Amino acid sequence: MPTTPYPIRPEVLAFDPYSPGLSIDEVRDRFGLSTVIKMASNENPLGTSPFVSREITHRAAFAFRYAQSDNPRLVAALAEHHGIPAANIIPGNGSDEVIDLLIRVCPTPGTHNIVACKPSFSMYRLQSRLCGVEFRAVPLKPDFSFDWKGLRAAVDDKTALVFITTPDNPSGWCPPVADVELFAASLPENCLLVVDEAYMDFCRDEGACSLLPRFSAFPNLVILRTFSKSYGMAGIRLGYGIMPQPLADAMRSVRMPFSVNILAESAGIAALQDTAFYDLTLRTVREGRDFLAEKLAALGCRVYPSEANFIMFQPPGSCGRDAAGIFEYLLSRGLIIRPLKSYELPGHLRVSIGTEDENKRFLSLLQEALA
Amino acid sequence: MPTTPYPIRPEVLAFDPYSPGLSIDEVRDRFGLSTVIKMASNENPLGTSPFVSREITHRAAFAFRYAQSDNPRLVAALAEHHGIPAANIIPGNGSDEVIDLLIRVCPTPGTHNIVACKPSFSMYRLQSRLCGVEFRAVPLKPDFSFDWKGLRAAVDDKTALVFITTPDNPSGWCPPVADVELFAASLPENCLLVVDEAYMDFCRDEGACSLLPRFSAFPNLVILRTFSKSYGMAGIRLGYGIMPQPLADAMRSVRMPFSVNILAESAGIAALQDTAFYDLTLRTVREGRDFLAEKLAALGCRVYPSEANFIMFQPPGSCGRDAAGIFEYLLSRGLIIRPLKSYELPGHLRVSIGTEDENKRFLSLLQEALA
Repeated sequence: MPTTPYPIRPEVLAFDPYSPGLSIDEVRDRFGLSTVIKMASNENPLGTSPFVSREITHRAAFAFRYAQSDNPRLVAALAEHHGIPAANIIPGNGSDEVIDLLIRVCPTPGTHNIVACKPSFSMYRLQSRLCGVEFRAVPLKPDFSFDWKGLRAAVDDKTALVFITTPDNPSGWCPPVADVELFAASLPENCLLVVDEAYMDFCRDEGACSLLPRFSAFPNLVILRTFSKSYGMAGIRLGYGIMPQPLADAMRSVRMPFSVNILAESAGIAALQDTAFYDLTLRTVREGRDFLAEKLAALGCRVYPSEANFIMFQPPGSCGRDAAGIFEYLLSRGLIIRPLKSYELPGHLRVSIGTEDENKRFLSLLQEALA
Repeated sequence: MPTTPYPIRPEVLAFDPYSPGLSIDEVRDRFGLSTVIKMASNENPLGTSPFVSREITHRAAFAFRYAQSDNPRLVAALAEHHGIPAANIIPGNGSDEVIDLLIRVCPTPGTHNIVACKPSFSMYRLQSRLCGVEFRAVPLKPDFSFDWKGLRAAVDDKTALVFITTPDNPSGWCPPVADVELFAASLPENCLLVVDEAYMDFCRDEGACSLLPRFSAFPNLVILRTFSKSYGMAGIRLGYGIMPQPLADAMRSVRMPFSVNILAESAGIAALQDTAFYDLTLRTVREGRDFLAEKLAALGCRVYPSEANFIMFQPPGSCGRDAAGIFEYLLSRGLIIRPLKSYELPGHLRVSIGTEDENKRFLSLLQEALA
């Protein structure tokens, strides 16, 4: 980056930015295609909840009004939905905003540190870096399970936040909830455990995997959830954190008042009512996941067990070149999956679970690519 | 705030949060009213642009898709609209996000400082404080014009950003562009001047008041604009900054990739096409402003000259109690205006320009309150 007469913080110079997947428009334009299938960003294979679409349509003319600060209607609906007091819930412009706020509110740069897995969702590392807070990355085990001992060993009395994602991204691995509980209990009381449950709905047995039902048992626990995946609201942005009230109070006091847009607020309330769409989404994802896992294995791929709405795999005999070649081949045929180079996994690929037709199309193109 | 076992940054403890206006729902509930008129938050009196409503409706079913990172379609539309290269434009989740990013990107806490007027839009001060950056507030002159000499004197070689709002909030005062140019030219090259033109569209002569046509003449100039007011998009959140390219590159590299929601992105492009709505908005605001200014003066109020979509005034013989009493009276009758206590102006009130009917209703209630 060029030198500027005005200051730019050293943390920002040579920042390694977030690496998003390709969009449908980009791929359509690049290859001159008429239709493109995207199985790259863990979006909902069924689209947007009809309740959400209808609510957005009904409320479109109210886009000129600021939402009510702190989004009390939405927070009340979430409180009722989860059986958690409203005072513990902080909504955000996607859970990205809640992650960012946690990092801005808790650790003091130069004093505290943050611990997470490597690889993990890049937002934990990027926002730590932007805030100038030390980020400690503990490698996953070779099977992509968490190295609990390694994580615990990285925590010291200056660790403000530990981030884990369950089920994890990009692997789909989900630890038994008992292990997460043991880990939570092992942390010093100065340290908050942030469990990002963005993909928790897709677990075979959510009740047995989520810490949410056990939230009140842990004084230092933050749970993140999102409407992006299971409710089909990735683009309209709505996530939330569930956290101890003193932390929630601090977050509320510094949060920008209108960050959650007024349509997302209403849409989120509507989404919680749309149990038919939600149930069909879960069934589609779980059935598609089983189907893809079986067929990918039959094609000789190494398939990592997933509890999320995506599957990580390695093509047979995969080196980085093979995975990149497969990604490029699929792309040229109008199907986008996610290469994992930005996760430092050049030999791995991630495919989001699609509709039945999309899953079949993906497998058929993959078979061509492997031939 | 109670002591917590986990760290909360000292800047966050005892934070003085943003003080939003009351919402229609709150007032309806508090006073058991069936209809409430809001002239408090500088929203568009005509509502949302019909092009925007239609676009939101058309795109509602696409809410499940992430927007394309960096919002290239929107940025291209803005570039064409203003005749400014796309590389200089950074969109945000409201201009709030752009303000926040400027403060996160440029000043190093403990080293640099930020200068603004007192009072001014509280987001400059709040985000400076959250970032731990020294904030220097230079009082406005008694007539609410800017103290250019005082601002310049507050700037030193560690000043990263100077924020001014033209037209200003809450006074509505707009400096001659020649004065802003002189001030910009007087700043050291290490210092960025951020001119927040959120209300610039409403000026009697925008061409003579805005620095935007002169953007390329200043290497250290940032201009902020928003779709909230003149396009009726406050709730759906869309603002943008126009800035030197090295700064824009730095902002892009650290910006959260999906902060602008996909509906706001499309709606913004549609809004730029809706010249009929835009022109009618400007006419409604300018005519309503002249009407209100004349009638308020006739009621014995001190009226501050405004180029924005609101008017600041003092009730006759006003002390803080009078202004608060008038605000409460209007509220109890279902009309919300903005008391300016949070701007440390307890004797002043701000009313957003409404429709012809709303303006008349406001004047009639005010007359009752003064009687």
